[in-house]
Amino acid sequence: MFNEKMYELGSKRSVIRELFELGKKRAAEFGADKVFDFSLGNPNVPAPAAVNETIKNILDEMPSTVIHGYTSAQGDAGTRKAVADYINERFGCSVNADNIYMTCGAAASLTISLKALCSKDTDEVVIFAPYFPEYTVFIANANARYVSVPALSVTFQPDLAAFAKSVTADTRAVIINSPNNPSGVVYTEETVKAICSILGAKSKEFGNPIYIICDEPYRELVYDSVNVPYLMNYYDDVLVCYSYSKSLSLPGERIGYIAVSPKAKDSASVYAAVCGAGRSLGYVCAPSLMQEVVKRCLKEKPDIESYKANRDLLYNSLTEYGYDCVKPDGAFYLFVKILGDDEEEFCRRASDRGLLLVPGAGFASPGYVRIAYCVSTDTIRRSLPEFESLAKSYR
Amino acid sequence: MFNEKMYELGSKRSVIRELFELGKKRAAEFGADKVFDFSLGNPNVPAPAAVNETIKNILDEMPSTVIHGYTSAQGDAGTRKAVADYINERFGCSVNADNIYMTCGAAASLTISLKALCSKDTDEVVIFAPYFPEYTVFIANANARYVSVPALSVTFQPDLAAFAKSVTADTRAVIINSPNNPSGVVYTEETVKAICSILGAKSKEFGNPIYIICDEPYRELVYDSVNVPYLMNYYDDVLVCYSYSKSLSLPGERIGYIAVSPKAKDSASVYAAVCGAGRSLGYVCAPSLMQEVVKRCLKEKPDIESYKANRDLLYNSLTEYGYDCVKPDGAFYLFVKILGDDEEEFCRRASDRGLLLVPGAGFASPGYVRIAYCVSTDTIRRSLPEFESLAKSYR
Repeated sequence: MFNEKMYELGSKRSVIRELFELGKKRAAEFGADKVFDFSLGNPNVPAPAAVNETIKNILDEMPSTVIHGYTSAQGDAGTRKAVADYINERFGCSVNADNIYMTCGAAASLTISLKALCSKDTDEVVIFAPYFPEYTVFIANANARYVSVPALSVTFQPDLAAFAKSVTADTRAVIINSPNNPSGVVYTEETVKAICSILGAKSKEFGNPIYIICDEPYRELVYDSVNVPYLMNYYDDVLVCYSYSKSLSLPGERIGYIAVSPKAKDSASVYAAVCGAGRSLGYVCAPSLMQEVVKRCLKEKPDIESYKANRDLLYNSLTEYGYDCVKPDGAFYLFVKILGDDEEEFCRRASDRGLLLVPGAGFASPGYVRIAYCVSTDTIRRSLPEFESLAKSYR
Repeated sequence: MFNEKMYELGSKRSVIRELFELGKKRAAEFGADKVFDFSLGNPNVPAPAAVNETIKNILDEMPSTVIHGYTSAQGDAGTRKAVADYINERFGCSVNADNIYMTCGAAASLTISLKALCSKDTDEVVIFAPYFPEYTVFIANANARYVSVPALSVTFQPDLAAFAKSVTADTRAVIINSPNNPSGVVYTEETVKAICSILGAKSKEFGNPIYIICDEPYRELVYDSVNVPYLMNYYDDVLVCYSYSKSLSLPGERIGYIAVSPKAKDSASVYAAVCGAGRSLGYVCAPSLMQEVVKRCLKEKPDIESYKANRDLLYNSLTEYGYDCVKPDGAFYLFVKILGDDEEEFCRRASDRGLLLVPGAGFASPGYVRIAYCVSTDTIRRSLPEFESLAKSYR
């Protein structure tokens, strides 16, 4: 006499949770310094100093009832204007405040966007493997079905031929996540153009817009000045789902936004549907203090250098030991091919050495593991002999 | 090619929003001091001083990655324990941390609870008029149907005979909101016992639990030491949906919780379904800084005295002018019977005098208006001649 599906969703222990428990057990047995937890995508870089200073300033400057009061459902007008201005300044778009809907973080941005676009249980949403596993949960919440497109091996760019076949008259949206979790790969401009060209043709063929939902929490985490194409400049029917989780290291504060491209067909109606979906799901407004923080801090950048140092150390060492993986241009993940052909056995041998890695099966890409390198460089340094020993065990 | 229902939800301007625009227009024409906006349930009392001091202490004491990092999905363990301990201390219950799920405020508490309990489109949720209009939106989001039970006139306690008839084999839950928005009425212990007795008999008759969802954001706003019965002490299958919006004057910060009674049948499974529903709707965790604030400030109380002064001044004056309304024991609303028999005409004459009142039709109770007295006492004092003139216009 409760919702069985929700019970299953809530009671199944996630792989990452299992790893967390395993880590605790191992730490108790062998010491905390013998556990190398690469499972969690939780930024280890503190928020830029300006964030906490700004919070204190806000508390000193503004009346309590304004700081902590309701904003309008779509978000504080000043914050929305600041976000729109910043998008225009950086990407040369013509977004305005009324295209911006402030949200309780990336997950909320996605559930709201999906519910705004999908309505029938025949509706389909295309996602590219490897993908963040919650996509399938959020698509189910919108009553729609997901259609998975494989990646090309080696580059981890999407298989475009497979993509073209996956788009049907029932396709409402396509989710693009670049820089990608779990591969760290940034989709090239060539990939983006090809995706847009396929969707443009299919929209015409089926006589209705097919939206691209850009899930971009990792946009600011890119290395070596790699360009991450901004989809609004390549395609009209775009919703950008952003979060400050990674760029301001505020994952727990649940603050982000949806930007509905002003060039989208029915842009104002889609925006209204976003407002309605937010209301329906119980999102009254995004947390008010954090909206003000975003307004004042949205140009702040995270400490990319430490992530980059981690990436370089780990990537160079692992490839030297004989591991095979694509060099990630963004995010803080390395997606490594397992040694041998048994994922379970590989992960067991890894955890025997204190290396907690997430199996690729959880990202619809068996045969790989995800290493989240948002940990201290010292942790990585100390873990290297274990990675080397793991590789040797397969020789 | 978007969700039409969501579009409608998002594009229909709410009555309160209309009033807000009307107020702005009138202020431009006659001056801001000639507008008396009683439409918004936004606390005018600042957060207790301890809240902002606590935020500063947290920023000084804890590392950024902990303050602003993810907590577990159900909430920080320390916060959940503090909430459970406080419930037990105040109400003599035996709740523990694993019965508490921290949420992004009252609306999230409700959408998550409803989705956890309902699954089929034949499922029904009983609500008592007058009710907060978003209940019907949240119940629809859970794919269920609402069944409305009228209130008795004069007392605004529920019509228990009608309630008994409304409960069927399809009833999954009953929402109780006391102190009530919009009437300000607190359900008496007699009412609560009768509701529980009816539900106990019906649960037995149909062979399944029927849950009571207590929506209690106004619990701390009660006057003259009136007792608000704590439902877990009267019935087993209870979910308490709480929010700190009103008790800590933090409506914009979106922080609250769901407490699943440990005595509920399948309590652990219902809790798991709550976790699953939160996940499905995109609620990753409740805002982390505010979770820590709640842990440290949950015994703080709002400034009840100013609300009480407002209630007394307004209630005494209005009844003196000939208005008819139940004396509210809680919340910050007065639910007043209109003069004449035309609600639209009454509201028009009110707004002609700068009095912005919400029509009762929006709360499924036509023939009344809601006056939100969470405004300065001075505003109320200055509005009284207008209320008197409005009454005189009906003599």
